Amino acid sequence: MNKLLLSLIVSIFLSGELYAQNAYDITEEEALKVLLSAKTKAEEMDVLVNIAVTDAGANLKAFIRMDASYLGSIDVAIKKAKTARYFNIDTGKLGEMTQPGGIIYNIELSNGGLITFPGGLPIKNKDNVIIGAIGISGGTIEQDRAIAIAAAQSILEL
Amino acid sequence: MNKLLLSLIVSIFLSGELYAQNAYDITEEEALKVLLSAKTKAEEMDVLVNIAVTDAGANLKAFIRMDASYLGSIDVAIKKAKTARYFNIDTGKLGEMTQPGGIIYNIELSNGGLITFPGGLPIKNKDNVIIGAIGISGGTIEQDRAIAIAAAQSILEL
Amino acid sequence: MNKLLLSLIVSIFLSGELYAQNAYDITEEEALKVLLSAKTKAEEMDVLVNIAVTDAGANLKAFIRMDASYLGSIDVAIKKAKTARYFNIDTGKLGEMTQPGGIIYNIELSNGGLITFPGGLPIKNKDNVIIGAIGISGGTIEQDRAIAIAAAQSILEL
Amino acid sequence: MNKLLLSLIVSIFLSGELYAQNAYDITEEEALKVLLSAKTKAEEMDVLVNIAVTDAGANLKAFIRMDASYLGSIDVAIKKAKTARYFNIDTGKLGEMTQPGGIIYNIELSNGGLITFPGGLPIKNKDNVIIGAIGISGGTIEQDRAIAIAAAQSILEL
Repeated sequence: MNKLLLSLIVSIFLSGELYAQNAYDITEEEALKVLLSAKTKAEEMDVLVNIAVTDAGANLKAFIRMDASYLGSIDVAIKKAKTARYFNIDTGKLGEMTQPGGIIYNIELSNGGLITFPGGLPIKNKDNVIIGAIGISGGTIEQDRAIAIAAAQSILEL
Repeated sequence: MNKLLLSLIVSIFLSGELYAQNAYDITEEEALKVLLSAKTKAEEMDVLVNIAVTDAGANLKAFIRMDASYLGSIDVAIKKAKTARYFNIDTGKLGEMTQPGGIIYNIELSNGGLITFPGGLPIKNKDNVIIGAIGISGGTIEQDRAIAIAAAQSILEL
Repeated sequence: MNKLLLSLIVSIFLSGELYAQNAYDITEEEALKVLLSAKTKAEEMDVLVNIAVTDAGANLKAFIRMDASYLGSIDVAIKKAKTARYFNIDTGKLGEMTQPGGIIYNIELSNGGLITFPGGLPIKNKDNVIIGAIGISGGTIEQDRAIAIAAAQSILEL
Repeated sequence: MNKLLLSLIVSIFLSGELYAQNAYDITEEEALKVLLSAKTKAEEMDVLVNIAVTDAGANLKAFIRMDASYLGSIDVAIKKAKTARYFNIDTGKLGEMTQPGGIIYNIELSNGGLITFPGGLPIKNKDNVIIGAIGISGGTIEQDRAIAIAAAQSILEL
């Protein structure tokens, strides 16, 4: 069984390009930078948050939960990041359109559950291309959004 | 095969500390006390309810359903307790912020479904540390909340 | 709103039979007896378990988790009890038929996930009628089953 | 509305102990140490993996995905970590008991899906108490397990 897996892996490595990172996808280094920048910002603001980073494919790339932050914010932070990338939008802006009577009322029910209040933002590279997204949960919506903005911008320093 | 499991279990017991209960986690004795206090309170008030207790990790610790109480309240009671621990809050207070136009509108769609009307409360120990949560469902929201308050406070008598 | 609910409740009470417990359904008193008997038996055997009781409708009736027992056993204990009532069978006996090549291979995939190894048993009243089920998880399969047997029989003492 | 949340948060902070981290729960600092140790080990071994850390309550604490590692390994790594904590066990050891004919065949169907091959391990502190778990996915099962071992032990250096 292991031989099968091994030969599979060898052939994959030999094929070279297969593992190539999408050119416009956030890297592990960038994701860690965003994560730690958000953590630093949250500590400066004295807020306890959960921090989630997704890649260009809206898949989880990095995550950290500060001690004693809300357990319920694990899922909220991840859903904020996914929502921001699903629709390339500030989650708070999306929420303005999902209220009763809004043009996309209850879109929260799609994609396994969206979060449409502030704290989720697309992450853009120096060329203004969206390469992923960040979601923050645990503080007030204003605090969450401020941390997300600072963290998303931090990769421009790399 | 059974010998394997047996030796595994023996080795776990010999390792001593492995099974240690978290210092700030509700105990079985406390959970039973909360459960029976809620039951007594509900009987005094002549209300039929479901009673759920979760631990500090928001995992189910104890549960009882009174005869002829709503079947649909099984899940509501459990979700109320989980919600109260997820965000360390009275579920009714959370609900004030999740209404249309509210700052965290539709957060109910996270964490596999939240319940954000009264009846869920964090459980605190004598040092005011949250060690779990309780959720009551089956009566009016005022009744559910009154039962939750009485039950959560009952562990201070232990 | 509360008046509506109140009048609803009053009308339900006046209708009498509506809240009547199924004649062959486990009562809250019986469920608590089963729960505490299982707990006592587990303590005598020095095993840490999760204990779940379902009613005749396979709905959760009572639950308790002993301190430091497996977190993963919450769901396993509940699924054992549900499985035992779904098919009115000792879960271990069901497992003999679900192995590869067995007549009901992989039935575990139904009903949101079954558990088909020992520890789940129907609960019968004095007239030999099934009124619910019990599920035990946390010890060896032999220990879990022994606790389930002792607990299921305890209601005959009431 | 924001004032409500603000006053709520202020009152929570004033209550002091409320945000206390459980004494036997992995800290953010420890989780980051485990994450980065796993990353370093994987780079040394030239393997691309997903790394997940859960806390004592089996809730996600930290996560990182190396560039070009399998997308499918996000969920596998998280489930390995959860499984290791759910049953306080090396996931590979659990898998020996879940095979056809095994004593706990098909337990994988519980808890929303378990992963029972190597790569998940409990994380213990210096006193041998389990404080969380790690899950690695992306390499061979031997590689995943070797990375998990190295990372779990790294917190003893703190």
